[in-house]
Amino acid sequence: MADTIYTSQLQAHCDRFDTALPAYMPATDGLQTTVAQAMAYACEGGGKRIRPVLVMEFCRLCGGEVEQALPFAAAIEMIHSYSLVHDDLPCMDNSLLRRGRPSTHAKYGETMALLAGDGLLNLAFETMLRPASRDGLDPSCALGAASALADAAGIEGMVGGQVIDLESEGKTIDLSTLEALQRGKTAALLTAACVMGARLAGASPSMEEAARVYGEQVGLSFQIVDDILDVTATADKLGKPVGSDAENEKVTYVSLLGLEEARALAAQRTAAAVEALAVFGAEADNLRHLAQSLLERDH
Amino acid sequence: MADTIYTSQLQAHCDRFDTALPAYMPATDGLQTTVAQAMAYACEGGGKRIRPVLVMEFCRLCGGEVEQALPFAAAIEMIHSYSLVHDDLPCMDNSLLRRGRPSTHAKYGETMALLAGDGLLNLAFETMLRPASRDGLDPSCALGAASALADAAGIEGMVGGQVIDLESEGKTIDLSTLEALQRGKTAALLTAACVMGARLAGASPSMEEAARVYGEQVGLSFQIVDDILDVTATADKLGKPVGSDAENEKVTYVSLLGLEEARALAAQRTAAAVEALAVFGAEADNLRHLAQSLLERDH
Repeated sequence: MADTIYTSQLQAHCDRFDTALPAYMPATDGLQTTVAQAMAYACEGGGKRIRPVLVMEFCRLCGGEVEQALPFAAAIEMIHSYSLVHDDLPCMDNSLLRRGRPSTHAKYGETMALLAGDGLLNLAFETMLRPASRDGLDPSCALGAASALADAAGIEGMVGGQVIDLESEGKTIDLSTLEALQRGKTAALLTAACVMGARLAGASPSMEEAARVYGEQVGLSFQIVDDILDVTATADKLGKPVGSDAENEKVTYVSLLGLEEARALAAQRTAAAVEALAVFGAEADNLRHLAQSLLERDH
Repeated sequence: MADTIYTSQLQAHCDRFDTALPAYMPATDGLQTTVAQAMAYACEGGGKRIRPVLVMEFCRLCGGEVEQALPFAAAIEMIHSYSLVHDDLPCMDNSLLRRGRPSTHAKYGETMALLAGDGLLNLAFETMLRPASRDGLDPSCALGAASALADAAGIEGMVGGQVIDLESEGKTIDLSTLEALQRGKTAALLTAACVMGARLAGASPSMEEAARVYGEQVGLSFQIVDDILDVTATADKLGKPVGSDAENEKVTYVSLLGLEEARALAAQRTAAAVEALAVFGAEADNLRHLAQSLLERDH
Protein backbone atom coordinates (compact mmCIF):
# COMPACT_ATOMS: atom_id res chain seq x y z
CA MET A 1 0.00 0.00 0.00
CA ALA A 2 1.48 3.32 -1.03
CA ASP A 3 1.97 5.75 1.83
CA THR A 4 1.47 8.74 -0.40
CA ILE A 5 0.25 9.24 -3.93
CA TYR A 6 3.03 11.70 -4.75
CA THR A 7 6.71 11.12 -5.43
CA SER A 8 8.93 13.95 -4.21
CA GLN A 9 8.82 15.58 -7.65
CA LEU A 10 5.01 15.62 -7.72
CA GLN A 11 4.94 16.83 -4.12
CA ALA A 12 7.22 19.68 -5.22
CA HIS A 13 4.68 20.61 -7.94
CA CYS A 14 1.93 20.54 -5.33
CA ASP A 15 3.88 22.78 -2.95
CA ARG A 16 4.82 25.17 -5.78
CA PHE A 17 1.16 25.35 -6.78
CA ASP A 18 -0.02 26.15 -3.27
CA THR A 19 2.54 28.96 -3.09
CA ALA A 20 1.55 30.34 -6.49
CA LEU A 21 -2.26 30.13 -6.26
CA PRO A 22 -2.97 33.23 -4.11
CA ALA A 23 -1.45 35.50 -6.79
CA TYR A 24 -4.18 34.36 -9.20
CA MET A 25 -7.03 35.10 -6.80
CA PRO A 26 -8.77 38.50 -6.74
CA ALA A 27 -7.77 41.16 -4.22
CA THR A 28 -9.82 40.88 -1.04
CA ASP A 29 -10.42 44.58 -0.56
CA GLY A 30 -12.75 47.26 -1.96
CA LEU A 31 -16.33 46.61 -3.02
CA GLN A 32 -15.64 42.95 -3.87
CA THR A 33 -14.20 41.95 -0.49
CA THR A 34 -16.81 39.37 0.47
CA VAL A 35 -17.07 37.60 -2.86
CA ALA A 36 -13.29 37.55 -3.22
CA GLN A 37 -13.01 35.98 0.24
CA ALA A 38 -15.65 33.39 -0.65
CA MET A 39 -13.80 32.55 -3.86
CA ALA A 40 -10.50 32.13 -2.00
CA TYR A 41 -12.21 30.05 0.71
CA ALA A 42 -13.61 27.70 -1.93
CA CYS A 43 -10.11 27.06 -3.30
CA GLU A 44 -8.55 26.33 0.09
CA GLY A 45 -9.14 23.41 2.38
CA GLY A 46 -6.41 20.89 1.72
CA GLY A 47 -7.37 19.08 -1.46
CA LYS A 48 -4.65 16.99 -3.12
CA ARG A 49 -4.40 19.46 -6.04
CA ILE A 50 -4.27 16.47 -8.34
CA ARG A 51 -5.48 18.39 -11.42
CA PRO A 52 -2.91 21.18 -11.13
CA VAL A 53 -0.16 18.62 -10.44
CA LEU A 54 -1.12 16.72 -13.61
CA VAL A 55 -1.02 19.93 -15.71
CA MET A 56 2.44 20.73 -14.35
CA GLU A 57 3.87 17.20 -14.65
CA PHE A 58 2.65 16.62 -18.23
CA CYS A 59 4.02 20.01 -19.19
CA ARG A 60 7.42 19.02 -17.73
CA LEU A 61 7.28 15.55 -19.25
CA CYS A 62 6.59 16.94 -22.73
CA GLY A 63 9.51 19.34 -22.51
CA GLY A 64 7.72 22.52 -21.35
CA GLU A 65 8.45 24.97 -18.56
CA VAL A 66 6.57 24.08 -15.38
CA GLU A 67 6.35 27.76 -14.36
CA GLN A 68 4.43 28.57 -17.54
CA ALA A 69 1.85 25.93 -16.63
CA LEU A 70 0.97 27.67 -13.34
CA PRO A 71 -1.86 29.96 -14.57
CA PHE A 72 -3.43 27.02 -16.36
CA ALA A 73 -3.02 24.83 -13.26
CA ALA A 74 -4.71 27.58 -11.25
CA ALA A 75 -7.54 27.74 -13.79
CA ILE A 76 -8.38 24.03 -13.58
CA GLU A 77 -8.36 24.17 -9.78
CA MET A 78 -10.75 27.16 -9.89
CA ILE A 79 -13.13 25.18 -12.09
CA HIS A 80 -12.91 22.14 -9.84
CA SER A 81 -13.59 24.39 -6.84
CA TYR A 82 -16.55 26.21 -8.41
CA SER A 83 -18.13 22.85 -9.21
CA LEU A 84 -17.91 21.87 -5.52
CA VAL A 85 -19.45 25.20 -4.44
CA HIS A 86 -22.41 24.82 -6.80
CA ASP A 87 -22.76 21.07 -5.99
CA ASP A 88 -23.11 21.85 -2.32
CA LEU A 89 -25.90 24.44 -2.83
CA PRO A 90 -29.34 23.74 -1.31
CA CYS A 91 -30.91 23.02 -4.71
CA MET A 92 -28.15 20.49 -5.49
CA ASP A 93 -26.68 18.22 -2.73
CA ASN A 94 -27.52 20.66 0.09
CA SER A 95 -24.24 19.89 1.86
CA LEU A 96 -23.25 22.01 4.82
CA LEU A 97 -19.82 20.38 5.12
CA ARG A 98 -16.95 20.07 2.64
CA ARG A 99 -13.55 18.63 3.61
CA GLY A 100 -14.50 18.95 7.29
CA ARG A 101 -15.25 22.69 7.06
CA PRO A 102 -18.49 24.59 6.44
CA SER A 103 -19.29 24.55 2.72
CA THR A 104 -19.06 27.92 0.96
CA HIS A 105 -22.80 28.66 1.17
CA ALA A 106 -22.90 27.54 4.80
CA LYS A 107 -20.26 30.17 5.54
CA TYR A 108 -21.17 32.98 3.10
CA GLY A 109 -24.85 32.42 2.34
CA GLU A 110 -26.50 30.92 -0.70
CA THR A 111 -26.52 34.00 -2.96
CA MET A 112 -22.89 34.85 -2.33
CA ALA A 113 -21.91 31.20 -2.93
CA LEU A 114 -23.77 31.19 -6.25
CA LEU A 115 -21.93 34.34 -7.33
CA ALA A 116 -18.58 33.11 -5.97
CA GLY A 117 -19.01 29.95 -8.06
CA ASP A 118 -19.87 31.97 -11.16
CA GLY A 119 -16.90 34.20 -10.38
CA LEU A 120 -14.51 31.25 -10.09
CA LEU A 121 -15.64 29.64 -13.35
CA ASN A 122 -15.17 32.98 -15.08
CA LEU A 123 -11.85 33.66 -13.33
CA ALA A 124 -10.45 30.42 -14.73
CA PHE A 125 -10.79 31.87 -18.23
CA GLU A 126 -9.66 35.36 -17.22
CA THR A 127 -6.54 33.75 -15.77
CA MET A 128 -5.70 31.64 -18.84
CA LEU A 129 -6.45 34.36 -21.38
CA ARG A 130 -4.73 37.38 -19.87
CA PRO A 131 -1.56 38.40 -21.70
CA ALA A 132 0.76 37.84 -18.70
CA SER A 133 -0.30 34.19 -18.52
CA ARG A 134 0.68 33.64 -22.13
CA ASP A 135 4.02 35.40 -21.97
CA GLY A 136 6.59 33.18 -23.66
CA LEU A 137 3.97 30.70 -24.83
CA ASP A 138 3.05 30.14 -28.45
CA PRO A 139 -0.50 31.64 -28.75
CA SER A 140 -1.81 28.42 -30.29
CA CYS A 141 -0.46 26.38 -27.36
CA ALA A 142 -2.26 28.71 -24.94
CA LEU A 143 -5.45 28.54 -27.00
CA GLY A 144 -5.23 24.75 -27.22
CA ALA A 145 -4.83 24.35 -23.47
CA ALA A 146 -7.66 26.78 -22.65
CA SER A 147 -9.89 25.09 -25.19
CA ALA A 148 -9.25 21.64 -23.68
CA LEU A 149 -10.39 22.93 -20.30
CA ALA A 150 -13.46 24.68 -21.73
CA ASP A 151 -14.57 21.52 -23.54
CA ALA A 152 -14.06 19.33 -20.47
CA ALA A 153 -15.93 21.61 -18.07
CA GLY A 154 -19.15 22.06 -20.06
CA ILE A 155 -22.22 20.05 -20.87
CA GLU A 156 -20.21 17.50 -22.84
CA GLY A 157 -18.05 17.09 -19.73
CA MET A 158 -18.34 18.08 -16.09
CA VAL A 159 -21.67 19.95 -16.18
CA GLY A 160 -23.04 17.12 -18.32
CA GLY A 161 -22.01 14.59 -15.68
CA GLN A 162 -23.89 16.60 -13.07
CA VAL A 163 -26.97 16.64 -15.26
CA ILE A 164 -26.90 12.86 -15.73
CA ASP A 165 -26.43 12.46 -11.98
CA LEU A 166 -29.41 14.74 -11.30
CA GLU A 167 -31.64 13.00 -13.82
CA SER A 168 -30.64 9.53 -12.54
CA GLU A 169 -31.81 10.20 -9.00
CA GLY A 170 -34.11 7.46 -7.74
CA LYS A 171 -33.75 5.52 -11.00
CA THR A 172 -31.92 2.33 -11.88
CA ILE A 173 -29.29 3.16 -14.47
CA ASP A 174 -27.21 0.78 -16.56
CA LEU A 175 -23.44 0.55 -16.84
CA SER A 176 -23.22 2.73 -19.94
CA THR A 177 -25.15 5.56 -18.25
CA LEU A 178 -23.01 5.22 -15.12
CA GLU A 179 -19.94 5.34 -17.34
CA ALA A 180 -21.17 8.52 -19.10
CA LEU A 181 -21.92 10.06 -15.71
CA GLN A 182 -18.43 9.33 -14.35
CA ARG A 183 -16.67 10.32 -17.55
CA GLY A 184 -18.30 13.72 -17.12
CA LYS A 185 -18.11 14.19 -13.38
CA THR A 186 -14.59 12.90 -12.77
CA ALA A 187 -12.67 11.78 -15.83
CA ALA A 188 -13.26 14.78 -18.09
CA LEU A 189 -11.41 17.26 -15.90
CA LEU A 190 -8.57 14.82 -15.08
CA THR A 191 -8.18 14.14 -18.79
CA ALA A 192 -8.16 17.87 -19.54
CA ALA A 193 -5.43 18.40 -16.94
CA CYS A 194 -3.12 15.95 -18.73
CA VAL A 195 -3.95 17.26 -22.22
CA MET A 196 -3.46 20.88 -21.10
CA GLY A 197 0.02 20.11 -19.82
CA ALA A 198 0.90 18.40 -23.09
CA ARG A 199 -0.49 21.23 -25.23
CA LEU A 200 1.29 23.92 -23.20
CA ALA A 201 4.55 22.15 -23.97
CA GLY A 202 3.68 21.90 -27.66
CA ALA A 203 3.70 18.08 -27.43
CA SER A 204 3.56 15.84 -30.49
CA PRO A 205 0.18 14.25 -31.34
CA SER A 206 1.35 10.88 -29.97
CA MET A 207 2.39 12.44 -26.67
CA GLU A 208 -0.90 14.34 -26.40
CA GLU A 209 -2.80 11.12 -27.08
CA ALA A 210 -0.81 9.33 -24.36
CA ALA A 211 -1.68 12.14 -21.95
CA ARG A 212 -5.36 11.87 -22.89
CA VAL A 213 -5.49 8.10 -22.34
CA TYR A 214 -3.64 8.35 -19.03
CA GLY A 215 -6.01 11.01 -17.69
CA GLU A 216 -9.11 9.22 -18.86
CA GLN A 217 -8.13 5.81 -17.50
CA VAL A 218 -6.89 7.18 -14.18
CA GLY A 219 -10.11 9.20 -13.89
CA LEU A 220 -12.37 6.22 -14.53
CA SER A 221 -10.33 3.97 -12.24
CA PHE A 222 -10.44 6.63 -9.52
CA GLN A 223 -14.22 6.57 -9.40
CA ILE A 224 -14.42 2.77 -9.28
CA VAL A 225 -12.01 2.75 -6.32
CA ASP A 226 -14.19 5.40 -4.63
CA ASP A 227 -17.19 3.11 -5.00
CA ILE A 228 -15.21 0.13 -3.64
CA LEU A 229 -13.96 2.10 -0.63
CA ASP A 230 -17.52 3.14 0.21
CA VAL A 231 -18.18 -0.58 0.79
CA THR A 232 -14.87 -1.84 2.19
CA ALA A 233 -13.16 1.01 4.06
CA THR A 234 -13.60 1.88 7.69
CA ALA A 235 -15.21 5.25 8.43
CA ASP A 236 -12.08 6.08 10.40
CA LYS A 237 -9.77 5.70 7.41
CA LEU A 238 -12.17 7.32 4.94
CA GLY A 239 -12.93 10.36 7.10
CA LYS A 240 -16.59 10.13 6.13
CA PRO A 241 -19.42 7.62 6.72
CA VAL A 242 -19.05 4.35 4.78
CA GLY A 243 -21.95 2.61 3.13
CA SER A 244 -23.53 5.93 2.15
CA ASP A 245 -24.01 4.83 -1.47
CA ALA A 246 -26.07 1.79 -0.46
CA GLU A 247 -28.02 3.88 2.04
CA ASN A 248 -28.83 6.42 -0.68
CA GLU A 249 -29.71 3.57 -3.07
CA LYS A 250 -27.10 4.94 -5.42
CA VAL A 251 -26.09 2.91 -8.45
CA THR A 252 -22.31 2.35 -8.32
CA TYR A 253 -19.73 0.19 -10.04
CA VAL A 254 -19.97 -2.15 -7.05
CA SER A 255 -23.76 -2.38 -7.14
CA LEU A 256 -23.70 -3.07 -10.89
CA LEU A 257 -20.63 -5.33 -11.15
CA GLY A 258 -20.05 -6.74 -7.65
CA LEU A 259 -16.89 -6.15 -5.65
CA GLU A 260 -14.57 -8.53 -7.45
CA GLU A 261 -15.41 -7.43 -10.96
CA ALA A 262 -15.23 -3.78 -9.92
CA ARG A 263 -11.74 -4.42 -8.53
CA ALA A 264 -10.69 -6.12 -11.75
CA LEU A 265 -12.00 -3.22 -13.86
CA ALA A 266 -10.16 -0.64 -11.75
CA ALA A 267 -6.93 -2.62 -12.08
CA GLN A 268 -7.42 -3.00 -15.82
CA ARG A 269 -7.89 0.74 -16.27
CA THR A 270 -4.89 1.58 -14.17
CA ALA A 271 -2.86 -0.83 -16.32
CA ALA A 272 -4.11 0.94 -19.46
CA ALA A 273 -3.09 4.28 -17.95
CA VAL A 274 0.39 3.01 -17.14
CA GLU A 275 0.74 1.40 -20.55
CA ALA A 276 -0.02 4.73 -22.26
CA LEU A 277 3.02 6.21 -20.55
CA ALA A 278 5.43 3.98 -22.50
CA VAL A 279 6.10 6.77 -25.00
CA PHE A 280 7.71 8.81 -22.22
CA GLY A 281 10.11 6.10 -20.92
CA ALA A 282 11.49 6.25 -17.38
CA GLU A 283 10.77 9.98 -17.08
CA ALA A 284 7.12 9.06 -16.47
CA ASP A 285 7.82 7.09 -13.28
CA ASN A 286 6.16 9.80 -11.16
CA LEU A 287 2.93 9.24 -13.06
CA ARG A 288 3.23 5.43 -12.88
CA HIS A 289 3.55 5.72 -9.11
CA LEU A 290 0.56 8.07 -8.99
CA ALA A 291 -1.73 5.75 -10.98
CA GLN A 292 -0.73 2.73 -8.91
CA SER A 293 -1.11 4.55 -5.58
CA LEU A 294 -4.56 5.83 -6.51
CA LEU A 295 -5.58 2.24 -7.26
CA GLU A 296 -4.17 0.89 -4.01
CA ARG A 297 -5.32 3.69 -1.72
CA ASP A 298 -7.35 2.83 1.36
CA HIS A 299 -9.05 6.21 1.79
CA MET B 1 -38.44 59.90 -31.19
CA ALA B 2 -36.69 57.09 -33.04
CA ASP B 3 -39.02 54.34 -34.17
CA THR B 4 -36.36 51.70 -33.94
CA ILE B 5 -32.88 51.60 -32.45
CA TYR B 6 -31.45 49.84 -35.50
CA THR B 7 -30.62 51.15 -38.96
CA SER B 8 -31.18 48.59 -41.71
CA GLN B 9 -27.51 47.54 -41.52
CA LEU B 10 -27.71 46.85 -37.78
CA GLN B 11 -31.04 45.09 -38.25
CA ALA B 12 -29.31 42.88 -40.83
CA HIS B 13 -26.64 41.99 -38.23
CA CYS B 14 -29.42 41.16 -35.76
CA ASP B 15 -31.22 38.94 -38.27
CA ARG B 16 -27.97 37.24 -39.29
CA PHE B 17 -27.19 36.59 -35.64
CA ASP B 18 -30.59 35.03 -34.94
CA THR B 19 -30.11 32.72 -37.91
CA ALA B 20 -26.59 31.75 -36.83
CA LEU B 21 -27.11 31.26 -33.08
CA PRO B 22 -28.74 27.78 -33.08
CA ALA B 23 -25.61 26.27 -34.67
CA TYR B 24 -23.62 27.29 -31.59
CA MET B 25 -26.04 25.69 -29.14
CA PRO B 26 -25.63 22.08 -27.96
CA ALA B 27 -27.57 19.27 -29.62
CA THR B 28 -30.88 18.68 -27.88
CA ASP B 29 -30.77 14.89 -27.94
CA GLY B 30 -29.10 12.13 -25.94
CA LEU B 31 -28.39 12.29 -22.22
CA GLN B 32 -28.15 16.11 -22.22
CA THR B 33 -31.55 16.79 -23.80
CA THR B 34 -33.12 18.69 -20.92
CA VAL B 35 -30.17 20.91 -20.06
CA ALA B 36 -29.57 21.67 -23.73
CA GLN B 37 -33.23 22.69 -24.09
CA ALA B 38 -32.98 24.87 -21.00
CA MET B 39 -29.84 26.53 -22.38
CA ALA B 40 -31.52 27.22 -25.73
CA TYR B 41 -34.66 28.51 -23.99
CA ALA B 42 -32.58 30.97 -21.98
CA CYS B 43 -31.09 32.41 -25.18
CA GLU B 44 -34.45 32.84 -26.91
CA GLY B 45 -37.24 35.24 -26.08
CA GLY B 46 -36.82 38.24 -28.26
CA GLY B 47 -34.08 40.34 -26.73
CA LYS B 48 -32.66 43.08 -28.92
CA ARG B 49 -29.33 41.21 -29.31
CA ILE B 50 -27.58 44.50 -28.74
CA ARG B 51 -24.31 42.95 -27.55
CA PRO B 52 -23.93 40.62 -30.56
CA VAL B 53 -24.87 43.48 -32.91
CA LEU B 54 -22.14 45.66 -31.37
CA VAL B 55 -19.53 42.91 -31.76
CA MET B 56 -20.48 42.51 -35.42
CA GLU B 57 -20.69 46.22 -36.24
CA PHE B 58 -17.38 47.16 -34.61
CA CYS B 59 -15.74 44.24 -36.39
CA ARG B 60 -17.11 45.57 -39.72
CA LEU B 61 -16.23 49.16 -38.89
CA CYS B 62 -12.62 48.24 -38.08
CA GLY B 63 -12.23 46.36 -41.34
CA GLY B 64 -12.91 42.80 -40.20
CA GLU B 65 -15.17 40.08 -41.59
CA VAL B 66 -18.60 40.11 -39.91
CA GLU B 67 -18.96 36.33 -40.37
CA GLN B 68 -15.82 35.73 -38.30
CA ALA B 69 -17.36 37.70 -35.45
CA LEU B 70 -20.36 35.33 -35.18
CA PRO B 71 -18.95 32.82 -32.66
CA PHE B 72 -17.81 35.70 -30.46
CA ALA B 73 -21.20 37.40 -30.83
CA ALA B 74 -22.81 34.10 -29.79
CA ALA B 75 -20.48 33.88 -26.78
CA ILE B 76 -21.40 37.30 -25.38
CA GLU B 77 -25.11 36.56 -25.81
CA MET B 78 -24.63 33.26 -23.92
CA ILE B 79 -22.98 35.12 -21.06
CA HIS B 80 -25.72 37.76 -21.00
CA SER B 81 -28.31 34.97 -20.99
CA TYR B 82 -26.66 32.94 -18.23
CA SER B 83 -26.57 36.06 -16.06
CA LEU B 84 -30.34 36.46 -16.47
CA VAL B 85 -30.93 32.78 -15.60
CA HIS B 86 -28.88 33.02 -12.40
CA ASP B 87 -30.36 36.47 -11.53
CA ASP B 88 -33.85 35.07 -11.66
CA LEU B 89 -33.08 32.14 -9.30
CA PRO B 90 -34.93 31.98 -5.96
CA CYS B 91 -31.82 32.95 -3.97
CA MET B 92 -31.31 36.03 -6.20
CA ASP B 93 -34.31 38.03 -7.52
CA ASN B 94 -36.72 35.09 -7.36
CA SER B 95 -38.39 36.11 -10.65
CA LEU B 96 -40.85 33.75 -12.25
CA LEU B 97 -41.19 35.88 -15.39
CA ARG B 98 -38.62 37.09 -17.91
CA ARG B 99 -39.59 38.90 -21.10
CA GLY B 100 -43.18 37.84 -20.60
CA ARG B 101 -42.38 34.12 -20.44
CA PRO B 102 -41.67 31.82 -17.48
CA SER B 103 -38.07 32.32 -16.32
CA THR B 104 -35.75 29.37 -16.92
CA HIS B 105 -36.08 27.95 -13.40
CA ALA B 106 -39.85 28.44 -13.47
CA LYS B 107 -39.92 26.22 -16.54
CA TYR B 108 -37.11 23.72 -15.88
CA GLY B 109 -36.71 23.75 -12.10
CA GLU B 110 -34.10 25.41 -9.96
CA THR B 111 -31.36 22.77 -10.20
CA MET B 112 -31.57 22.49 -13.96
CA ALA B 113 -31.55 26.30 -14.29
CA LEU B 114 -28.43 26.52 -12.14
CA LEU B 115 -26.68 23.93 -14.34
CA ALA B 116 -27.99 25.51 -17.56
CA GLY B 117 -26.53 28.84 -16.43
CA ASP B 118 -23.19 27.22 -15.62
CA GLY B 119 -23.37 25.43 -18.96
CA LEU B 120 -23.99 28.68 -20.86
CA LEU B 121 -21.15 30.56 -19.19
CA ASN B 122 -18.84 27.67 -20.00
CA LEU B 123 -20.22 27.30 -23.54
CA ALA B 124 -19.30 30.92 -24.26
CA PHE B 125 -15.64 30.02 -23.81
CA GLU B 126 -15.94 26.66 -25.59
CA THR B 127 -17.42 28.54 -28.54
CA MET B 128 -14.73 31.21 -28.72
CA LEU B 129 -11.81 28.85 -28.16
CA ARG B 130 -12.63 25.98 -30.49
CA PRO B 131 -10.43 25.81 -33.60
CA ALA B 132 -13.32 26.29 -36.07
CA SER B 133 -14.21 29.63 -34.46
CA ARG B 134 -10.69 30.89 -34.97
CA ASP B 135 -10.32 29.75 -38.54
CA GLY B 136 -8.86 32.62 -40.57
CA LEU B 137 -8.33 34.76 -37.48
CA ASP B 138 -4.93 35.71 -36.13
CA PRO B 139 -4.62 33.70 -32.86
CA SER B 140 -3.76 36.83 -30.91
CA CYS B 141 -6.90 38.59 -32.21
CA ALA B 142 -9.00 35.62 -31.03
CA LEU B 143 -7.22 35.55 -27.67
CA GLY B 144 -7.65 39.32 -27.27
CA ALA B 145 -11.38 39.18 -27.97
CA ALA B 146 -11.95 36.21 -25.65
CA SER B 147 -9.89 37.86 -22.94
CA ALA B 148 -11.94 41.09 -23.18
CA LEU B 149 -15.12 39.10 -22.60
CA ALA B 150 -13.62 37.10 -19.72
CA ASP B 151 -12.47 40.26 -17.95
CA ALA B 152 -15.84 41.99 -18.40
CA ALA B 153 -17.92 39.06 -17.16
CA GLY B 154 -16.10 38.38 -13.88
CA ILE B 155 -15.88 39.92 -10.45
CA GLU B 156 -14.25 43.07 -11.83
CA GLY B 157 -17.23 43.35 -14.19
CA MET B 158 -20.65 41.76 -14.41
CA VAL B 159 -20.46 39.37 -11.43
CA GLY B 160 -18.94 42.22 -9.44
CA GLY B 161 -21.91 44.44 -10.30
CA GLN B 162 -24.25 41.73 -9.01
CA VAL B 163 -22.30 41.51 -5.79
CA ILE B 164 -22.50 45.29 -5.20
CA ASP B 165 -26.23 45.13 -5.96
CA LEU B 166 -26.69 42.30 -3.47
CA GLU B 167 -24.68 44.01 -0.76
CA SER B 168 -26.47 47.35 -1.31
CA GLU B 169 -29.92 45.92 -0.62
CA GLY B 170 -31.76 47.97 1.97
CA LYS B 171 -28.88 50.44 2.24
CA THR B 172 -28.46 54.00 1.03
CA ILE B 173 -25.60 54.07 -1.45
CA ASP B 174 -23.82 57.09 -2.89
CA LEU B 175 -23.34 58.01 -6.54
CA SER B 176 -19.89 56.44 -6.80
CA THR B 177 -21.18 53.08 -5.53
CA LEU B 178 -24.18 53.26 -7.87
CA GLU B 179 -21.76 54.04 -10.70
CA ALA B 180 -19.56 51.02 -9.83
CA LEU B 181 -22.68 48.84 -9.65
CA GLN B 182 -23.91 49.94 -13.10
CA ARG B 183 -20.46 49.80 -14.67
CA GLY B 184 -20.38 46.15 -13.66
CA LYS B 185 -23.98 45.12 -14.27
CA THR B 186 -24.56 46.89 -17.60
CA ALA B 187 -21.62 48.81 -19.01
CA ALA B 188 -18.91 46.16 -18.67
CA LEU B 189 -20.50 43.72 -21.12
CA LEU B 190 -21.55 46.45 -23.59
CA THR B 191 -17.99 47.78 -23.51
CA ALA B 192 -16.60 44.29 -24.05
CA ALA B 193 -18.87 43.82 -27.06
CA CYS B 194 -17.39 46.88 -28.77
CA VAL B 195 -13.80 46.02 -27.83
CA MET B 196 -14.22 42.42 -28.98
CA GLY B 197 -15.37 43.57 -32.41
CA ALA B 198 -12.40 45.90 -32.69
CA ARG B 199 -9.91 43.26 -31.57
CA LEU B 200 -11.30 40.62 -33.93
CA ALA B 201 -10.62 43.03 -36.79
CA GLY B 202 -7.10 43.71 -35.53
CA ALA B 203 -7.99 47.37 -34.96
CA SER B 204 -5.38 50.01 -34.17
CA PRO B 205 -5.06 51.11 -30.51
CA SER B 206 -6.93 54.38 -31.24
CA MET B 207 -9.83 52.52 -32.86
CA GLU B 208 -9.98 50.06 -29.95
CA GLU B 209 -10.01 52.96 -27.50
CA ALA B 210 -12.85 54.62 -29.45
CA ALA B 211 -14.79 51.34 -29.26
CA ARG B 212 -14.17 51.12 -25.53
CA VAL B 213 -15.37 54.67 -24.84
CA TYR B 214 -18.46 54.22 -27.02
CA GLY B 215 -19.47 51.01 -25.25
CA GLU B 216 -18.85 52.39 -21.80
CA GLN B 217 -20.72 55.67 -22.35
CA VAL B 218 -23.66 54.00 -24.12
CA GLY B 219 -23.81 51.43 -21.30
CA LEU B 220 -23.86 54.03 -18.54
CA SER B 221 -26.36 56.20 -20.41
CA PHE B 222 -28.59 53.16 -20.99
CA GLN B 223 -28.96 52.53 -17.27
CA ILE B 224 -29.77 56.18 -16.50
CA VAL B 225 -32.52 56.12 -19.14
CA ASP B 226 -33.84 52.89 -17.57
CA ASP B 227 -34.08 54.65 -14.22
CA ILE B 228 -35.81 57.66 -15.83
CA LEU B 229 -38.34 55.47 -17.66
CA ASP B 230 -39.23 53.69 -14.43
CA VAL B 231 -40.51 57.08 -13.24
CA THR B 232 -41.87 58.65 -16.43
CA ALA B 233 -43.09 55.89 -18.73
CA THR B 234 -46.51 54.33 -18.79
CA ALA B 235 -46.75 50.67 -17.83
CA ASP B 236 -48.30 50.08 -21.22
CA LYS B 237 -45.28 51.37 -23.14
CA LEU B 238 -42.75 49.79 -20.80
CA GLY B 239 -44.33 46.34 -20.77
CA LYS B 240 -43.69 46.07 -17.03
CA PRO B 241 -44.93 47.89 -13.92
CA VAL B 242 -43.57 51.44 -13.56
CA GLY B 243 -42.47 52.94 -10.26
CA SER B 244 -40.99 49.60 -9.15
CA ASP B 245 -37.69 51.20 -8.14
CA ALA B 246 -39.37 53.62 -5.72
CA GLU B 247 -41.58 50.84 -4.40
CA ASN B 248 -38.52 48.68 -3.75
CA GLU B 249 -36.73 51.69 -2.18
CA LYS B 250 -34.02 51.22 -4.74
CA VAL B 251 -31.34 53.87 -5.12
CA THR B 252 -31.30 55.04 -8.76
CA TYR B 253 -29.83 57.87 -10.79
CA VAL B 254 -33.19 59.61 -10.46
CA SER B 255 -33.41 59.19 -6.69
CA LEU B 256 -29.85 60.49 -6.27
CA LEU B 257 -29.79 63.25 -8.91
CA GLY B 258 -33.41 64.15 -9.59
CA LEU B 259 -35.09 63.80 -12.98
CA GLU B 260 -33.56 66.81 -14.72
CA GLU B 261 -29.98 66.16 -13.73
CA ALA B 262 -30.34 62.48 -14.58
CA ARG B 263 -31.57 63.48 -18.05
CA ALA B 264 -28.64 65.85 -18.48
CA LEU B 265 -26.15 63.15 -17.45
CA ALA B 266 -27.65 60.62 -19.88
CA ALA B 267 -27.45 63.16 -22.71
CA GLN B 268 -23.88 64.06 -21.80
CA ARG B 269 -22.80 60.42 -21.89
CA THR B 270 -24.51 59.80 -25.18
CA ALA B 271 -22.69 62.83 -26.56
CA ALA B 272 -19.38 61.40 -25.31
CA ALA B 273 -20.20 58.08 -27.00
CA VAL B 274 -20.98 59.80 -30.30
CA GLU B 275 -17.88 61.98 -30.05
CA ALA B 276 -15.68 58.88 -29.67
CA LEU B 277 -16.89 57.69 -33.08
CA ALA B 278 -15.20 60.61 -34.89
CA VAL B 279 -12.20 58.42 -35.74
CA PHE B 280 -14.46 56.27 -37.93
CA GLY B 281 -16.04 59.09 -39.98
CA ALA B 282 -19.41 58.64 -41.71
CA GLU B 283 -19.09 54.82 -41.63
CA ALA B 284 -20.10 54.98 -37.95
CA ASP B 285 -23.53 56.51 -38.63
CA ASN B 286 -25.26 53.25 -37.65
CA LEU B 287 -23.73 53.54 -34.21
CA ARG B 288 -24.54 57.25 -33.90
CA HIS B 289 -28.17 56.42 -34.62
CA LEU B 290 -28.09 53.59 -32.08
CA ALA B 291 -26.69 55.76 -29.27
CA GLN B 292 -29.19 58.55 -29.97
CA SER B 293 -32.17 56.17 -30.21
CA LEU B 294 -31.27 54.47 -26.94
CA LEU B 295 -31.22 57.89 -25.27
CA GLU B 296 -34.57 58.91 -26.77
CA ARG B 297 -36.39 55.62 -26.30
CA ASP B 298 -39.72 55.59 -24.47
CA HIS B 299 -39.65 51.95 -23.37
